[in-house]
Amino acid sequence: MAGKKVLIVYAHQEPKSFNAALKDTAVQELSVQGCAVTVSDLYAMGFEPRATRSDITGALSSPESFNYGVEAHEAFKRRALASDILAEQRKVQEADLVIFQFPLYWFSVPAIMKGWMDRVLCQGFAFDIPGFYDSGFLKGKLALLSLTTGGVASMYTKAGDSGDFRYFLWPLQVSRQEASPPCFLHLRVTRTVNLFPF
Amino acid sequence: MAGKKVLIVYAHQEPKSFNAALKDTAVQELSVQGCAVTVSDLYAMGFEPRATRSDITGALSSPESFNYGVEAHEAFKRRALASDILAEQRKVQEADLVIFQFPLYWFSVPAIMKGWMDRVLCQGFAFDIPGFYDSGFLKGKLALLSLTTGGVASMYTKAGDSGDFRYFLWPLQVSRQEASPPCFLHLRVTRTVNLFPF
Repeated sequence: MAGKKVLIVYAHQEPKSFNAALKDTAVQELSVQGCAVTVSDLYAMGFEPRATRSDITGALSSPESFNYGVEAHEAFKRRALASDILAEQRKVQEADLVIFQFPLYWFSVPAIMKGWMDRVLCQGFAFDIPGFYDSGFLKGKLALLSLTTGGVASMYTKAGDSGDFRYFLWPLQVSRQEASPPCFLHLRVTRTVNLFPF
Repeated sequence: MAGKKVLIVYAHQEPKSFNAALKDTAVQELSVQGCAVTVSDLYAMGFEPRATRSDITGALSSPESFNYGVEAHEAFKRRALASDILAEQRKVQEADLVIFQFPLYWFSVPAIMKGWMDRVLCQGFAFDIPGFYDSGFLKGKLALLSLTTGGVASMYTKAGDSGDFRYFLWPLQVSRQEASPPCFLHLRVTRTVNLFPF
């Protein structure tokens, strides 16, 4: 990994949390290995999750009826996206590996991280039509989901109350297919640490 | 449905959108049928999606290390949640049916709606431990996902590029198991309307 660039997109409110410790450990370990590590600390940044008109600077392409996806795509092409989106896109563009560090909220990422995905990974930047999945624009980068759960590991099996964790991670996995191969790191906030790298 | 109460949680920025038309049609039709319909228009409300310290009024239960789930649960018990959360919980509590109306963003709800789920459906209100899934506190209510997609219907089949839509809706479905039976309404923004009620 020496010489590689890593972006950690991190969503936890508390610097003393287990998620923070995982993020800090990743920064330390990857730095020791010679990587250049950048962290987007979403709560600390007050990152905006809402996809709104404010994301497009200047005039709209079709002001008569606001279509976020269309306007974000057009704004990407003319470099008219909001500065916070451009800054995150720059970090993603430079990264060889993107790590998403988060606690599981309702079987998915917390809203603040969902907002990062909704706003940063816009058409033109992450994909186009055609130009998605195997031909997506982030192809060649690595992505890693590192998440904590409140429940015990057995809850997240096929026979468990919550079902196989691969089911509820599937939407995240398929969304990130541009960055392959998908790779998961699952850790529960206990002394027992479970790794599912695949 | 006469006499029933319906809450529509609606996430689209544009009053002239197809999502808005679906919402408006639902309001009109359900009202004609004798239902009392309430709409939470999340973008118009500027709904806050971020789960932060601001959601708890007054002192924290464990100020030494902020745990959102724990603090929200404690705040729910002592009626110390932020007023916007309490208002939404009141609407959910009164509703017999909750309709989620949204465009699909990255295989899930837009961040503003994910934030509604993260913040409103807190422990103590929607569930407890024990007291989840079949014994969740919203049991007996109906829930309906009404969503639009950018892609054509064939993309969301098992053999399609995006996979069976039931895969990516599964996290939403399992999350909402307290409100059963799950029921989906899938509409694409074209003249061809596809219904998948099951």
